[in-house]
Order: sequence, then structure tokens, then C-alpha cells
Amino acid sequence: MALKTRVTEMLGIEKPIIQAAMGWIARSHLSSAVSNAGGMGIIETSSGELDAVRDEILKMRQLTDKPFGVNVAQAFVRDPGIIQFVIDQGIRFVTTSAGDPMKYTGMLKEAGLTVFHVVPSLAGALRAVEAGVDGLIVEGGEGGGFKNPKDVSTMVLVPQVVEAVDVPVVAAGGIMDGRTMAAAFALGAEGVLMGTRILSSAECPVHDNWKRAIVEADATDTVFLNRSGPGPALRALRTDRTTRIEKDGTANIFGEFADTQAVYFGGDLEAGIALTGQVAGRIREVKPVAQIFDETMAEYEATVARMARAA
Amino acid sequence: MALKTRVTEMLGIEKPIIQAAMGWIARSHLSSAVSNAGGMGIIETSSGELDAVRDEILKMRQLTDKPFGVNVAQAFVRDPGIIQFVIDQGIRFVTTSAGDPMKYTGMLKEAGLTVFHVVPSLAGALRAVEAGVDGLIVEGGEGGGFKNPKDVSTMVLVPQVVEAVDVPVVAAGGIMDGRTMAAAFALGAEGVLMGTRILSSAECPVHDNWKRAIVEADATDTVFLNRSGPGPALRALRTDRTTRIEKDGTANIFGEFADTQAVYFGGDLEAGIALTGQVAGRIREVKPVAQIFDETMAEYEATVARMARAA
Repeated sequence: MALKTRVTEMLGIEKPIIQAAMGWIARSHLSSAVSNAGGMGIIETSSGELDAVRDEILKMRQLTDKPFGVNVAQAFVRDPGIIQFVIDQGIRFVTTSAGDPMKYTGMLKEAGLTVFHVVPSLAGALRAVEAGVDGLIVEGGEGGGFKNPKDVSTMVLVPQVVEAVDVPVVAAGGIMDGRTMAAAFALGAEGVLMGTRILSSAECPVHDNWKRAIVEADATDTVFLNRSGPGPALRALRTDRTTRIEKDGTANIFGEFADTQAVYFGGDLEAGIALTGQVAGRIREVKPVAQIFDETMAEYEATVARMARAA
Repeated sequence: MALKTRVTEMLGIEKPIIQAAMGWIARSHLSSAVSNAGGMGIIETSSGELDAVRDEILKMRQLTDKPFGVNVAQAFVRDPGIIQFVIDQGIRFVTTSAGDPMKYTGMLKEAGLTVFHVVPSLAGALRAVEAGVDGLIVEGGEGGGFKNPKDVSTMVLVPQVVEAVDVPVVAAGGIMDGRTMAAAFALGAEGVLMGTRILSSAECPVHDNWKRAIVEADATDTVFLNRSGPGPALRALRTDRTTRIEKDGTANIFGEFADTQAVYFGGDLEAGIALTGQVAGRIREVKPVAQIFDETMAEYEATVARMARAA
């Protein structure tokens, strides 16, 4: 099945599925699996570990001959040299997030890269279009990770943005399979971004305890934290720690991440914050990325055919 | 265009659109417009004004010869006689909400009525199916009104429930037009419920100030209140009052409704709480119900055709 959209054409990918740039996690092992499966693998920078990130970008060349991209999480990238490094590496696709799209879009566009900016609101989308981005990743509040404190759901935000802009839109938040991809396309998206679904994939380097927690979670088992700041709001798996933060608040949300390595790779989910989306409630099995994508495309096609028959 | 689903067949309606049973608002003037436009008009009981409600049910007979239903908001209906009254009036369709579906489903089913229960979670859905309901209204947290404090978005909750039950599902929360209806159907719904879109219709009896506030709102202009209780959580329009409750909390959420008549029909949006969904951010115009429904059906058809062509 071929499903051509402006997103697949612009990015040169077979399937309109982009991987979320999860901090520490979206490294070459996982991202090359995504690219090799026909989606768009993205190397993260939100860890701030730019030396490691540079190595990972170099490793991607050995692991895949398919397109891949880099995310520049502006709030977390303290070394502005990352932009020139990304350009020098011949990267063709960058997503920018967590900052003003006016900052890097011009420089990246001048170097000939394709730039998508991640936005959580219509105002953010209009600002990014003004900055000259090629596309938008429109992120509903049900998704995991850092969030606009005034969260808007995918069902509302995606069509709101689609109706207001001409650039292609990638929907994020709640997308994990063919029926949710079909829903996103009905709303006007031309691609989807998957975070939690790929976080729970076989190739994902996080500890099995986190994957198992996702498989066992209900959709009500995430919490939205720090809505009134200071610092960013976020959605994470419900644990004793995050339940306490939800109840009591925190003056230092970054401090609450405490021992990220222990959470992510040691499997101690109480040692920090495990960023996770509501869609955890629908994930029942750890699967290889290629299987996830193949099933998504087949279910997408079946969903469209079902709707066309009934109409 | 005919779009037959189990929901249209069970309820005997032309269009798979159900009107939210908004307290004080979902009376005969509005609900008859919905039924006459081919959807399912629903008379509310959450006002608790059962004498008025009884009159409204009688008036519906004069205003429409199309099917209509009654909502029994269990937490707000203190007179158990309403159930027998509904049965005696020859009502064929009841939605139950805000309470245990075990309480009235048996009695209503024995009398031959069709019963849909409103649920905000998978656990609620499974309980309602166990109680013997004919269908479910599955309500995402982006919608206006009383809410599960552990809110789940429509994009996640609808497919989660659809995959777990055999009864037909009506999607609520974020639905206002053909593209969102198509998204809901992609997720597996066989009908949609519209609240805020119908609240802002020409036939809706609320004050123009509220409708204007909806037309002017961004999607970020609602607030989710009282997540940790006591009493129910809810989503409402952002005003000075609701911003204060969001910030400081409240020990008495019902007390904060203060002067509902002044808000709803007097146009003083600071006199209480104006329950409103995020989809307000997408509503740009007050329109008659029939126009809303006709445009929804046409856009639904165009959306399905667009997706079928691209697949």
C-alpha cells in the first residue's frame, strides 16, 4: 500500500509515520529501526548530551540508508553549535521544539533543510508558519512528555490548525495504530507522530519494567503535572512519585526527574518521572517497530475501506 | 446521503448525531430542532427541575413527530418517579449518566426502552455493558460539562472502548463537524454526540453573550476544574471566576455555580460557571441546527471520499 502525502513526499519516506524524539531514548538503535521500517527516525537532543548525540548521528549512517532526522529541543540545547553540526552532517530533516521557531528556522532553511516545528496551540502554529517552517507537528495534550499547560486534545487541535495553515500537519497525541492514524487523517493531518507506541517497541532501549507498565496501564493511568509552573507542564505515567507531585505540586519539576538513568534504563519507575501518553491504555503488547508500522498501514487501509463502504 | 449504523437503526434517526442533554438548556425548543433536523434531541433532567422537565416532554409531542429521548442524570434526579414518568410517556430512548448503570437499566429495558449509558472510562463502559445497556456514549475529557477527574481524550478512549465491547459506541468530546465525525467513525464510533456546537446554535435558548464567548474563544480558553474534588470535576469556559477556582480550588464546586440562570439566560458569564468544551475554539459562527447537521453530513461524505481516493 502506498499512501502519498506532502509529508511522505517532502521527507522521502514510505510510511507517513514519524517517531517522537524522546530524550535519551531516541538514539540510533531505535531510530534506525524506525527509518528501516519506512518511517522517519529522529535522533533526540533534549537529553542535552550533545557529544553522545553527535556519535548517534554518525552511527545512523551505518545502520540505515533511509532518511532520518534530528530534533532540536531548543530549551534543552545549550550549545548552539548543534545547528551547524546538524547542517554539516548532511541531515535533510530537522524538527524544532520547545522554543521560538524564529530562532533557528531561517538558518536551517538557508542550508536547505526541511524544518517542521512542534506546536501545542493555534497561536504556536501561526508563529511557526510566520517563521517559515515547512510543516507542523501538532501535539494534543493526551500525549506524553512536555506539554503546554493549557492542553488541547488532538481531536480539537489538529483540525483547528489544519483549517488555519497551508503547510502539512503531522498529528501527535493518542496515535498508535491504523484507526487512530485514519482519525488523524480525517482531521486533516498528512502524517502521524508516535511516541508511547514506539517507546514500548521491542527495539526501544528502555528497561522492560517501563514497557511492562505501559502494557498493563489503563488510559486513566497517566498524570498531567505542573500545570501552573514554574517550568514546563508534562504528562507522565502514574506512580507514587507522580501522584505525590500531582497532589502537592513542586517548586522544581526538573529536580523531580531525579535519576533519569535509573528510571529509563534501570527500571526503577519511582526514581524519577517516566514520560508516557494516555495511549498506554491501548497498548497490550511489545512489538517490533516494523510490525507496528505494517499493522498500522494495514489497519489504516481497512478503516478507510470500511468507511467508504458505509458512506 | 444515508449513513446507516446500528445507532441510526436502533434510534430510528436519519443522521447519527445525538444532542448533549445540557441542564436547563436541553428543553423542547432546542431538542425539537435537533429531532426535526434528523438527529436525536434529548430532554435534560440534570437541572433537577422535574416539573418543568415533564412539561417539556409533553411539549415535544407538539413540536416534532420525530424520535426524541430523555437523559436521566442519576446524581441530579432525586425523584425516582421520573423513570416511571418517562416510561409512561412512551419515550423510546433514554440516556443515563452520572451514576451506576445497574440502578435503572433493568427497569428501563423491561419497559422496552433503548438505553445508552454515558461513560468516561473503560471501566465505566464494562460496567454499563454488564448492566445490559444497548449502547454507550463515550465521552472524552475535551468535552464540556461534568467529567471524570481522570480524564481521557476522545482519540484514546473511543477506540479503547470500541475494542472491548460489542454494543455500539457514540463518541462525545471534540465533535462539531464532518471531519471530526469522520475521525470518530474511524475510531470505531457509530454515532456522535455534540454539546458545545449545539449550545452555540441559533435555536439554543442561552444568552447571546455565551454564544459570542464560544465564537470568540480559542481552544485553550476552557479550564478543567475540581480534579481532586470534593464533588465532580468539570470543564468550563475560562472566566475570571473559573480562573480563580482553577488557581485556588474550591471546597464547594456546586456553590460556585451560584446563579446559573444569570449565566445561562441573563448573559452574566461571571455569575457562575458556563460549562463549555474545548471545541469552542473551532466554532466561528452561530448557525441553525439544521444547517450544522447538513454541513456535518456533507463534510463527512467529502472526508471519506478524500481518504478513499488517497488510499
